Amino acid sequence: MKEVTMEKIVNMCKQYGFVFPGSDIYDGFANTWDFGPVGVELKNNVKKAWWKRFVQEDKSTYGVDAGILMNPRVWEASGHVASFSDPKMDCKKCKQRFRADNMIEEFSKGEVAAEGMTNEEMEKYIEDNNIKCPHCGSHEWSEIKQFKLMFETSRGTVEGSKDTVYLRPETCQGEYVNFLNVQRTTRAKIPFAIAQIGKSFRNEITPGNFLFRTIEFEQMELQMFCKDSDSMNIYNNYKERALNFVNDIGLPSDKLRFHDHDKLAHYAKAACDIQYKFPIGWEELNGIHHRGTWDLSRHSEFSGKSLEYLDPETNEKYIPTVIEYSIGADRLTLALLCEAFEEQELENGETREVMHFNPAIAPYKCAILPLIKKNHTDKATEVYNMLSKYFMCTYDDSGSIGKRYRRNDAIGTPYSITIDDETVNNNTVTIRDRDTMEQITLPLDEVVNYINEKILF
Amino acid sequence: MKEVTMEKIVNMCKQYGFVFPGSDIYDGFANTWDFGPVGVELKNNVKKAWWKRFVQEDKSTYGVDAGILMNPRVWEASGHVASFSDPKMDCKKCKQRFRADNMIEEFSKGEVAAEGMTNEEMEKYIEDNNIKCPHCGSHEWSEIKQFKLMFETSRGTVEGSKDTVYLRPETCQGEYVNFLNVQRTTRAKIPFAIAQIGKSFRNEITPGNFLFRTIEFEQMELQMFCKDSDSMNIYNNYKERALNFVNDIGLPSDKLRFHDHDKLAHYAKAACDIQYKFPIGWEELNGIHHRGTWDLSRHSEFSGKSLEYLDPETNEKYIPTVIEYSIGADRLTLALLCEAFEEQELENGETREVMHFNPAIAPYKCAILPLIKKNHTDKATEVYNMLSKYFMCTYDDSGSIGKRYRRNDAIGTPYSITIDDETVNNNTVTIRDRDTMEQITLPLDEVVNYINEKILF
Repeated sequence: MKEVTMEKIVNMCKQYGFVFPGSDIYDGFANTWDFGPVGVELKNNVKKAWWKRFVQEDKSTYGVDAGILMNPRVWEASGHVASFSDPKMDCKKCKQRFRADNMIEEFSKGEVAAEGMTNEEMEKYIEDNNIKCPHCGSHEWSEIKQFKLMFETSRGTVEGSKDTVYLRPETCQGEYVNFLNVQRTTRAKIPFAIAQIGKSFRNEITPGNFLFRTIEFEQMELQMFCKDSDSMNIYNNYKERALNFVNDIGLPSDKLRFHDHDKLAHYAKAACDIQYKFPIGWEELNGIHHRGTWDLSRHSEFSGKSLEYLDPETNEKYIPTVIEYSIGADRLTLALLCEAFEEQELENGETREVMHFNPAIAPYKCAILPLIKKNHTDKATEVYNMLSKYFMCTYDDSGSIGKRYRRNDAIGTPYSITIDDETVNNNTVTIRDRDTMEQITLPLDEVVNYINEKILF
Repeated sequence: MKEVTMEKIVNMCKQYGFVFPGSDIYDGFANTWDFGPVGVELKNNVKKAWWKRFVQEDKSTYGVDAGILMNPRVWEASGHVASFSDPKMDCKKCKQRFRADNMIEEFSKGEVAAEGMTNEEMEKYIEDNNIKCPHCGSHEWSEIKQFKLMFETSRGTVEGSKDTVYLRPETCQGEYVNFLNVQRTTRAKIPFAIAQIGKSFRNEITPGNFLFRTIEFEQMELQMFCKDSDSMNIYNNYKERALNFVNDIGLPSDKLRFHDHDKLAHYAKAACDIQYKFPIGWEELNGIHHRGTWDLSRHSEFSGKSLEYLDPETNEKYIPTVIEYSIGADRLTLALLCEAFEEQELENGETREVMHFNPAIAPYKCAILPLIKKNHTDKATEVYNMLSKYFMCTYDDSGSIGKRYRRNDAIGTPYSITIDDETVNNNTVTIRDRDTMEQITLPLDEVVNYINEKILF
C-alpha cells in the first residue's frame, strides 16, 4: 500500500471534481475551496448522517438554523469583541503578515509553547533567535499587534454611524440566544440539546492544509442544556457518542484518540478533543467541552433577559450547564477523503485509485453503464430514471467498461451497474462491487432494495 | 375560511417554532430571522426536494458548493462593484436612511416609476411634493447618493492594504467561475447545468415583509450552459419545469402566474418571473433568465482565461449561452407557510389551526403519542426508535390526546400515531390523518412503508 499524502489528496480532489481552489480562474483566493459535483454530494451526505444520528434519532435534540449576521451585542457578551485575536507581525520588507506564536513554535519545532508568552516575550525570542521572514528571508519585523479574527462589515442603515456587524466566528451563539425560544415552543424538559449545521468565518492569518483550516467553514454542533449535577455524565456520554459517530462513518479506531485539554477555562469542568491521524499528523477533528453556566449567564447579563429554566417538577429555577459537542464538516470530509483513498496494486501489475467510502456517504450510490452505447442507451436511461428517484446515480457511456469502472472507483461509487443484452431481454443487471471488484447478477426490480439496504446509516 | 394575513403567519411561526426574530433576546436585528426546530426541518425539506428534482433526477445537472467569500475580481467582472447600488437619502433630523425610489413609488401609490429617474429628478420630485420622513415626519433631506448593496469586509493579510472582500450578493458566480472545472471533471457535454444551494447577502435599506426580503438569504439556482440556437427552447422548458415544481410542492395553479419582464438587459433574449399570490399581493417567487454569453465573456475578459467550450463532435469552439433558473429557499418556504395555513372551523364550533403541508416537506412525518404516559411509554419509545431510523418523528406525551392532535395540526404533522393497549398487546397502531382527521388501524410493521409511500416527492 502506498503512502497517502495531502498532496495526493488535493490532486485527486481537483482531478475528479471533489474540491477545486476557490475562484480558480482568478488564480484562487487564499484558503478558500469550492466543492465540485462529487464533493458537494459527499459533504451533504456527511451532514445528513450527522443530523440523522444526533437530531432525527434523538428525542431530546432540536435543530435550529440561525443567522450568520447577528446583533453585535451577541459578540460582546460572548467575549469575542474584546479578546478573539491572534498576535501578528508584519515583515517590513515584503509586507506579508504572520502569526508570531506560530513562527516561534515552528522555529523551535514545538519545544517552545508560545501560547503563554506576552507580546514582548515573543518579540524578544524572535530577535534573540534571528527568526527570518518565511516569505522573503529578511529580518525586519514590525511590533507584534493583536489581529482581530472576526470579519467585520457594516450595515449602514443610519447616516454617519459605523454600525459594525460581524460574520459569526462560531455557530453556537445561535443556540444560546434561542435557548428559551426553543424550550418554550417544544416544551422540552432539561436535559435537552439544540443542534445546528452552518457556516462560520475566521480571518486567520496562516490558515492552510487544504480543507483542514479555511477562513470560511461549516460546523456541525450541538449544545446540551442540563443540570450541573448531571453534566459530567452527559459530557462522558457525548465523548462516547462522538467517537462512535466518526468510527461508524468511516474512520478506524486505531487512527482516532481522545486528547484531554491540560488547561481549562475558569468555568469549565472538562474539555477534550477527538483527534484523527491525518497525513499531516494527529490533529483535532472535534471537541467536547464542558462550558458551565458561562454562556447563558453572560447573555443574561448583556441582554437583561432572564435565561433561567423553571423545572416543572421541582419548581426550581436555574441557569443550566452546557455541554458542547462540535465537529467541522469540512475537516471531517477531509479525514474521510484521506481515509478512503487507496492506490491499489492489482494482480495484473496495474494500479487503481479507489475511494473506499462507507456507501452511506459515497457521492453516487451507483453508476449506470450501458455496455454498448448504440444498443443499450434506451434501457440504461430507463434504469437511471427508475433509480434516481431513490438515490444519487451517475450515468456514464463513454470509454471502455474497464475505464468506466476505474473512474467510478476513483470517485468512490460503491456499485457499478452494467446494462447489456441481458438487461434488455431478461431485465437482469450485473452489479460490480467497488471494493471486492466481484460481480453479481440481480433482477432489475430488486436493485432499489439491494442498494437501499447497503446505504442505510 | 378566515383570511390569512402576514401577521398571523408571523405569529404562528413564533408560537410553534418555525421562525424566531434573529438575536431575539437582544431585541432582534433588523430583517434577520432564525429558523426554529420545525422551521429548520421544513426549509431543509424544501431544499432537498429542489435538489432531488433538479440535480438528482437530472442526468445533465451537476451540483457545486462554492465559497461565500470569493476573489474580489469576480465582482468586478460581474459588474457588481461598479453598479450594484440603490439611491439612498438620509433624514437630517432623525438620521434614518431611506431608499429614494421606494419613497417616491409609495408616495405616488405606484403611479410614478422611479426606476428610470436620475438622482436629480428624484430630489426634485421629493422637494416638489414635500415628501416627509416616514420615521420622524420632518422634511430635511440630504442629497441622494448611491448606496452599495454588497457587504464589504477585509482580509488583512498584507500590512497596510485594505484588501476589500465582499459577501457574495448572488450564488451564480460560483457556477460561472467553475464552468470549466465542472465540465472537465464530469466530461459533460453541452447542454448541461451547474446547480447550487447557498447563502447570499444584500445590504438593503428597506427590506421587510418577514422572510420575503432579508439581508441574508438562501438561493437555490442553476445555470444551464447551451448552444445559442437551443437557448429559447431550453428557456421555455425551464419555465415549465419551474412552474411544475412549485405546483407539485404545494402551491396551487390559480395562485401562480408568469410575469414576463418588459425591459431586458442588452445581452438577454428573454426573462420572466413566476409570481405567487402572497398575503401582501402578487410577488416574485423565482426567475428564469436568458443571460446570453454575458457572464462567461466577462469572466474570460477579466481573468484572461478562455472559457470556451470545445464541441467534441463538431470541433467547434464557442462561449455557451446561459439560461438561469433561480428561486429563494426562504421565500418559497414563506409561500408554503402562507398556503398551508388554515384556521378551520370545526363542526363542534371550535377552531383548529392547521398547516396542510405536502407530507414530503412537513417538518415531522409523524407524531408518536402514548395514550397514557405510565402505561405506554416503553412501547411508544420502541416505536419512536424504530420509525426515527427512517424519517423525522416527534414524540409528545403531555396533555390530552386532543390537545396533542391540535399541536401537531399546527406544525403540519401529517400522521399522528397513538400508542395504546392495542399496540402493547397486538402490535397495531391508530393513525390519524391531519387533513381528514380520520383514523385507520395498521399493524406496526406496515407503518414505515405506509408513511414512506406518502412522503415520496
